[in-house]
Amino acid sequence: MKVVTFGEIMLRLAPEGYYRFFQNDRMNVSFGGSEANVAVSLANFGAESVFVSKLPAHAIGQGAVDSLRAFGVDTSHIARGGERIGIYFLEKGASQRGSVCIYDRKNSAIQQAFAAEFDWDAIFDGADWFHFSGITPALGANVAEICRIACAKAKEKGLKISCDLNYRAKLWTRDEAKAVMTGLMGYADICIANEEDAKDVFGIEAENTDITGGKLNKEGYVSVASQLAERFGLEKAAITLRSSISASDNDWSAMLYSKDGCHFSKTYRLHIVDRVGGGDSFAAGLIYALLAGKNDKDAVEFATAASALKHSIEGDFNRVSVNEVEKLAGGDASGRVQR
Amino acid sequence: MKVVTFGEIMLRLAPEGYYRFFQNDRMNVSFGGSEANVAVSLANFGAESVFVSKLPAHAIGQGAVDSLRAFGVDTSHIARGGERIGIYFLEKGASQRGSVCIYDRKNSAIQQAFAAEFDWDAIFDGADWFHFSGITPALGANVAEICRIACAKAKEKGLKISCDLNYRAKLWTRDEAKAVMTGLMGYADICIANEEDAKDVFGIEAENTDITGGKLNKEGYVSVASQLAERFGLEKAAITLRSSISASDNDWSAMLYSKDGCHFSKTYRLHIVDRVGGGDSFAAGLIYALLAGKNDKDAVEFATAASALKHSIEGDFNRVSVNEVEKLAGGDASGRVQR
Amino acid sequence: MKVVTFGEIMLRLAPEGYYRFFQNDRMNVSFGGSEANVAVSLANFGAESVFVSKLPAHAIGQGAVDSLRAFGVDTSHIARGGERIGIYFLEKGASQRGSVCIYDRKNSAIQQAFAAEFDWDAIFDGADWFHFSGITPALGANVAEICRIACAKAKEKGLKISCDLNYRAKLWTRDEAKAVMTGLMGYADICIANEEDAKDVFGIEAENTDITGGKLNKEGYVSVASQLAERFGLEKAAITLRSSISASDNDWSAMLYSKDGCHFSKTYRLHIVDRVGGGDSFAAGLIYALLAGKNDKDAVEFATAASALKHSIEGDFNRVSVNEVEKLAGGDASGRVQR
Amino acid sequence: MKVVTFGEIMLRLAPEGYYRFFQNDRMNVSFGGSEANVAVSLANFGAESVFVSKLPAHAIGQGAVDSLRAFGVDTSHIARGGERIGIYFLEKGASQRGSVCIYDRKNSAIQQAFAAEFDWDAIFDGADWFHFSGITPALGANVAEICRIACAKAKEKGLKISCDLNYRAKLWTRDEAKAVMTGLMGYADICIANEEDAKDVFGIEAENTDITGGKLNKEGYVSVASQLAERFGLEKAAITLRSSISASDNDWSAMLYSKDGCHFSKTYRLHIVDRVGGGDSFAAGLIYALLAGKNDKDAVEFATAASALKHSIEGDFNRVSVNEVEKLAGGDASGRVQR
Amino acid sequence: MKVVTFGEIMLRLAPEGYYRFFQNDRMNVSFGGSEANVAVSLANFGAESVFVSKLPAHAIGQGAVDSLRAFGVDTSHIARGGERIGIYFLEKGASQRGSVCIYDRKNSAIQQAFAAEFDWDAIFDGADWFHFSGITPALGANVAEICRIACAKAKEKGLKISCDLNYRAKLWTRDEAKAVMTGLMGYADICIANEEDAKDVFGIEAENTDITGGKLNKEGYVSVASQLAERFGLEKAAITLRSSISASDNDWSAMLYSKDGCHFSKTYRLHIVDRVGGGDSFAAGLIYALLAGKNDKDAVEFATAASALKHSIEGDFNRVSVNEVEKLAGGDASGRVQR
Amino acid sequence: MKVVTFGEIMLRLAPEGYYRFFQNDRMNVSFGGSEANVAVSLANFGAESVFVSKLPAHAIGQGAVDSLRAFGVDTSHIARGGERIGIYFLEKGASQRGSVCIYDRKNSAIQQAFAAEFDWDAIFDGADWFHFSGITPALGANVAEICRIACAKAKEKGLKISCDLNYRAKLWTRDEAKAVMTGLMGYADICIANEEDAKDVFGIEAENTDITGGKLNKEGYVSVASQLAERFGLEKAAITLRSSISASDNDWSAMLYSKDGCHFSKTYRLHIVDRVGGGDSFAAGLIYALLAGKNDKDAVEFATAASALKHSIEGDFNRVSVNEVEKLAGGDASGRVQR
Repeated sequence: MKVVTFGEIMLRLAPEGYYRFFQNDRMNVSFGGSEANVAVSLANFGAESVFVSKLPAHAIGQGAVDSLRAFGVDTSHIARGGERIGIYFLEKGASQRGSVCIYDRKNSAIQQAFAAEFDWDAIFDGADWFHFSGITPALGANVAEICRIACAKAKEKGLKISCDLNYRAKLWTRDEAKAVMTGLMGYADICIANEEDAKDVFGIEAENTDITGGKLNKEGYVSVASQLAERFGLEKAAITLRSSISASDNDWSAMLYSKDGCHFSKTYRLHIVDRVGGGDSFAAGLIYALLAGKNDKDAVEFATAASALKHSIEGDFNRVSVNEVEKLAGGDASGRVQR
Repeated sequence: MKVVTFGEIMLRLAPEGYYRFFQNDRMNVSFGGSEANVAVSLANFGAESVFVSKLPAHAIGQGAVDSLRAFGVDTSHIARGGERIGIYFLEKGASQRGSVCIYDRKNSAIQQAFAAEFDWDAIFDGADWFHFSGITPALGANVAEICRIACAKAKEKGLKISCDLNYRAKLWTRDEAKAVMTGLMGYADICIANEEDAKDVFGIEAENTDITGGKLNKEGYVSVASQLAERFGLEKAAITLRSSISASDNDWSAMLYSKDGCHFSKTYRLHIVDRVGGGDSFAAGLIYALLAGKNDKDAVEFATAASALKHSIEGDFNRVSVNEVEKLAGGDASGRVQR
Repeated sequence: MKVVTFGEIMLRLAPEGYYRFFQNDRMNVSFGGSEANVAVSLANFGAESVFVSKLPAHAIGQGAVDSLRAFGVDTSHIARGGERIGIYFLEKGASQRGSVCIYDRKNSAIQQAFAAEFDWDAIFDGADWFHFSGITPALGANVAEICRIACAKAKEKGLKISCDLNYRAKLWTRDEAKAVMTGLMGYADICIANEEDAKDVFGIEAENTDITGGKLNKEGYVSVASQLAERFGLEKAAITLRSSISASDNDWSAMLYSKDGCHFSKTYRLHIVDRVGGGDSFAAGLIYALLAGKNDKDAVEFATAASALKHSIEGDFNRVSVNEVEKLAGGDASGRVQR
Repeated sequence: MKVVTFGEIMLRLAPEGYYRFFQNDRMNVSFGGSEANVAVSLANFGAESVFVSKLPAHAIGQGAVDSLRAFGVDTSHIARGGERIGIYFLEKGASQRGSVCIYDRKNSAIQQAFAAEFDWDAIFDGADWFHFSGITPALGANVAEICRIACAKAKEKGLKISCDLNYRAKLWTRDEAKAVMTGLMGYADICIANEEDAKDVFGIEAENTDITGGKLNKEGYVSVASQLAERFGLEKAAITLRSSISASDNDWSAMLYSKDGCHFSKTYRLHIVDRVGGGDSFAAGLIYALLAGKNDKDAVEFATAASALKHSIEGDFNRVSVNEVEKLAGGDASGRVQR
Repeated sequence: MKVVTFGEIMLRLAPEGYYRFFQNDRMNVSFGGSEANVAVSLANFGAESVFVSKLPAHAIGQGAVDSLRAFGVDTSHIARGGERIGIYFLEKGASQRGSVCIYDRKNSAIQQAFAAEFDWDAIFDGADWFHFSGITPALGANVAEICRIACAKAKEKGLKISCDLNYRAKLWTRDEAKAVMTGLMGYADICIANEEDAKDVFGIEAENTDITGGKLNKEGYVSVASQLAERFGLEKAAITLRSSISASDNDWSAMLYSKDGCHFSKTYRLHIVDRVGGGDSFAAGLIYALLAGKNDKDAVEFATAASALKHSIEGDFNRVSVNEVEKLAGGDASGRVQR
Repeated sequence: MKVVTFGEIMLRLAPEGYYRFFQNDRMNVSFGGSEANVAVSLANFGAESVFVSKLPAHAIGQGAVDSLRAFGVDTSHIARGGERIGIYFLEKGASQRGSVCIYDRKNSAIQQAFAAEFDWDAIFDGADWFHFSGITPALGANVAEICRIACAKAKEKGLKISCDLNYRAKLWTRDEAKAVMTGLMGYADICIANEEDAKDVFGIEAENTDITGGKLNKEGYVSVASQLAERFGLEKAAITLRSSISASDNDWSAMLYSKDGCHFSKTYRLHIVDRVGGGDSFAAGLIYALLAGKNDKDAVEFATAASALKHSIEGDFNRVSVNEVEKLAGGDASGRVQR
């Protein structure tokens, strides 16, 4: 299976452990970004994974390329040029103190990309699936247009298309998001979201659900998913469900909707090591599971287990194998030593 | 608002992570001390914060000064001289293993201070509040006398005076504490304590309360607070309530008593990152809240939220802003990512 | 009291914190092995502790010797020679992600040991107890034979003999284990096991107990212990009981069986820092407690408390004192700061 | 003595030790910038040091403020606002491999500053000296204009003005630099440069000097300095002289020219720990020495010794005291232990 | 250009900085091995680089694969299986204390490889060059035979073949080496060696050369190279020349001999960061330079400059670009900052 | 051979790498002290090494004991009690910046020792040599008296006695030192000193020797040694000769005087990793060499080589074997890799 993802990869700078920013003089440096996270996860699942983006030609841009190549992600279609890579600063929260994320991503190379830099015909050669998130078109009109061109080409070549709504209020307004995303969703077969995304982008709401308090309203989610599916003619819509008890403990589950029915995964009580990239790991798990031919129930369990494991791993990337996910999805959540 | 604190600041040496002493060859070095912790916390809240102490003139003493200046604490009234800075070694506990604190603080510069080194008239110029803890007078008769002089001058200049009882059995006996603290409490407007302090220092006891088991006896605490207030003619008395489930998990709340009534804060289930300085962060929160004009209920909620956050932060100092405290006190304890 | 242990000590290589293998370029290096862990724990309890093994003469072998000497373990009977020290790679789990243990221990020095390298008469001089685990005879026929010689000599000199079954499927088959262990158990006075061990090695089973789900079946354990005791004429049989809620949270208790009755310890809810060596710390606690003259109830409480504390400590070795264990066994599990 | 500096402070990200970029997952984070480095150095010499700039209001900007406050630099005139802080990535060289510096400083807060954000009348109150480098006006026309306003006000209030040419080809062309700097140099009393700067900015050249080979041509430098002094009516002109034998070894000296004559300092053979900020530490040393009333010979020796010491210190900031500089300038370069 | 290398890659474990083994509890982990080092260096030069080996299927083996993939090395022909990866422990020397290298490489996966695991026809498809070192055939008769098969196939397909003698006394005797290497050298076009190698493997000696003292005897080296070239019908023979002044300082140069003449490179005075892989980086530089069409003089300068840079870089791998090598070979050894 | 040393061991706190104090939040923690350093070095040479001191009973004191036990030093005669362990802070210098050593050693356990805590009859049982330095009696009159008692008992039992003058101006005046040391030197057989020590303690001076400039005056040193030997009836007197070119480079040699003649060792150009403990490693080398029966020339070469190696090792302790010293003393200073 071959999957193409398109988006931004950023330099991530995070103080060690639970230190607040500049509490000491070290930061952990890694790379991450919604679609890059999906690409790495898929490569770890054994898929042929192609990540498309634009990165500066200097050593910092090269670091991002190398971080992807280490997992076997195909980086040969990443355009090189522009002046900077986007950066985000992450301070990990604990107990009642939430994580803090400060973005410094303006004017990044990908935001200065132009359509001619990407040969989608070549990129999609032999590919089965195209995935992007709502962050990509939010990077600018040019990037949204490249995204549209990619969608059109993917459709033409018969690829499945998935989109993770991923609304980022720092990048665009709800009105801008709605206008652009409505257009792009016309190409999508599968939509991934959390309840807030659907509301933020399209004004689609589930009733009686309190995302802070952690009580889940199953009917509400089914309603959101069916509205999404109906409005955009989707094959499937998936919603991830996070209940934040504290920065250290979350409950995590998901549901997958299709016309044939709706499946809720089991719920995991997570002791969080790093929650960034949790949604991306779900998307990757879902894409893998569907391409591998799993039915909806097994697919949502696989995707939820994959993303549950992500929360135990430092960094944006989900460093787990299919075997590890299957073991957890199959019911062994005891975390016993594998000797 | 301008607050003056007076006490000792020590060098803190702590093995990395959950290592026991000398399990490897590194220690985290930082500085801390009850009143210094209050001073830093207040500076972080935006107050004009003056810390008064004595530190050796060498590079280790300078390190302590610099650690305070970084937060904007006014260190210009710290006397310089003496031979050493007090040191404490801290080994962080986890699960059933408690933290270990080994003090090496004898003969520190502040313990060799003499009254003429501090010009309280100048120090209190424009100040609103004077705070010290029971540790300061426990450092020696000379320091107790300096503390008394400061209290008298503060009273004369119309400052509010707060005292955190903070009984330390390693520094003096209960009898010594009672004798000295009874004198100093005569100047205080507000007293902060935990149940043990009140009993240790003044023999004031709450009945039927088991501090290990974690069951709280509300009437008992009201009784302790009212006894304190009555005996010393206090305006307010605050008591912090810690239930230790394990070294990793504590329940944390507080109450604030005044003649007009008694307010208990909500209770936080803490996943502890570092509990040292928890009480000091409460004191700082209370001082700030009262100076900011909050009523008793809001003040105790602010102070408790501030100290709840402290438990998620490495080191003695409470590195949080007013906004962060208000957000938690206002009810959002979910620890969600702030993007 | 003087205790002799015989077995392998390995180099342990573990990524920092919760990193997966090679997520960054550092590993924590330490040493450990079932019997070495027991030896260090006993030395920390104040016992005269002799560890017998074989290690290469080079700097890596010397590192293992030094790691034991630091605790005061007598290493003068360790044979030096052979080419390599066994290695194991440990990746610490969290939440739903289990720890991973990769062994590279073949052809280690101890596996190439021969009987003439150990003068058991001298080694056992003045000793009270001999301990080994099922890992030692699993290292090879030569090592099993050395173990048998040691047992015979220990018996002859009147030492108590304890054996921790510790079945390792990577080292031998169940049939091989059964054949060899049956012979060695004939010398043993005390057997330590978990339910799986008894089944794996001897086919002795407790009914209706689900080790993953965490429900304990007390009768089942008594049945296993009594079968062990009966079959091998043991004085006592101890079983440790672990319920894995997740890689971060376990419930931990134990039982000690003798003809006079059966005692279950209290159960600890563990927040796990490092679970490797948990069983070894129990064995050490039991040996110490019995040698110190404790009755069965107190002994199993001491051993369980010792091993509960181990789970809060990084590395294989249990770095706790008798005082710390007694305090926990005596009921203070609050993990309060010891100032 | 009170000195005001104006310029940019950036976040500095550097791999640990001699690692190349992204060779592992950690970077040392600190702050630095030409004028900020001067400000810190002066504060360490005991001067009242005011650093003027603009920084974003978020935690990364605050980190820069705190890094200055720790040394006692007055940061109260730093404007807060804008979106980002400039960043530079530094890879330390060794032997034949040179250091690599990658800038990501566009659109920083200071580049978006406007004149009304700085009240130079208040800033210069009681000040003796104003210093900036050629980097500041290179940040944009608005910043150059603010710089001009500051110079005019400084002149009006009778401050000495010094300028370090510091040509940065990445920020502007030689023609742009010449045009702007010619205007600003009209205000300057003292100019600091290296031979390349004078040529790059003003086309002033020393003959027969090979900066790579390390041979110095004294007459050439005197010629450059006198041309600078003459063209701009300077009181003094200083030139730093670096001979790079390798990235690990440099020879370092300087000369100070005034109408009364020209003084060359002694030459130091440096084993380089970190050479960034070497020129800034010279500027700070010179400003301090002249304000302290030293004659030209002693001043250039002080400044050169100060900057020689800088090369032994990690980070941009020169963490040395007047005593340490005097000791080296006085002839003790043996680096013996100070007990 | 496409180059294939065949050999072993090992896990490298090195204490931090200049620590001796086990001086603290951390080691830097990386991967390296003579041919893998060549492969990475070539990939960094932009060549299509294929590394062939065998590695275990577990996470440690995968770590080695990932470490190569990060540089873009083609790892698709690495056989997976066997039980372990070879390990070497490296303690870095300084001043008069030499580095210490302890090998634990027996029974590694590559040593258990068999011929059918490598499809040389496919591997060499489109390739220009095949490189191996004397370490590969020293790993065992089976590996030597695989090496012979590869050579024969490479010859058949018209690839250039280079061999770095790299004698390792721990792996085989001189007689064994001579017998096997004589056979393999029959295929080689280019031989790389140091003076000791030629003597150790083939008894070819240069007179009057003292490798410890650091005096070079040019005629002696020409004599060695010409003897090698003549005996094995080589096109070229290269010899690297290291003079160890201390563990911290070496002089480094090389010569390249062909029938048309002999070229000595310039000599670099190295401040050593890490000397492991120095010879491999020379081999890679030579292969690249010759494939890029450089003449002998430029080729040996390129290769020597590449390897000089390697000595300034931590780890086995030479992390430098063609530009960086050209700059140094072109004469700029000043190590100035590249801004 | 069995050697007894008596003195203080301190906790050493040093910033990482070349950081100045508190430049970041970590320090390397280790232990050291003149006689402890000698004891560890001798243990590493294979001698039976007994270190006598007094240390507090808490975990910090235990850390010191463990640090010695790891090397096999016999710590069974260390008295336990008192309140604190002495501490010293060490900031490593580089280039022109000297190292800084700040002592905080007053009121340490050993300074509160009393004679009855040491049973010298038992301690010296089977011992060949007793060593102390001038630091020990400088710790207080009580410690000087214990030292005298030890000397008298050692003399009585026929041990050789060596004393390293080691004058510390922070501990006592020259007059105090002279009075006490004159008494103790009456027991000594061998004295070790540097030129400054002899002058500081006894007013014995070498003429025309400039310790800063690095020029050695051989006659001067012979004169100092012969004066020492004559005044105190010594068998031998050794003087270490350090020329500090910079904090990074020293020349190091030594001479050994006896009535039969005077031998100067070769001189080593040191690239310094850590120079603390350099003199102690010389003393240990000399004691070992003489006990091993070496003649004066070989003994001074062994001791000088041992201490040259020490300068390449982090920490106070000299972590080298006899083989490593012999190799260097035998002439191989090239620092080549030992594979």
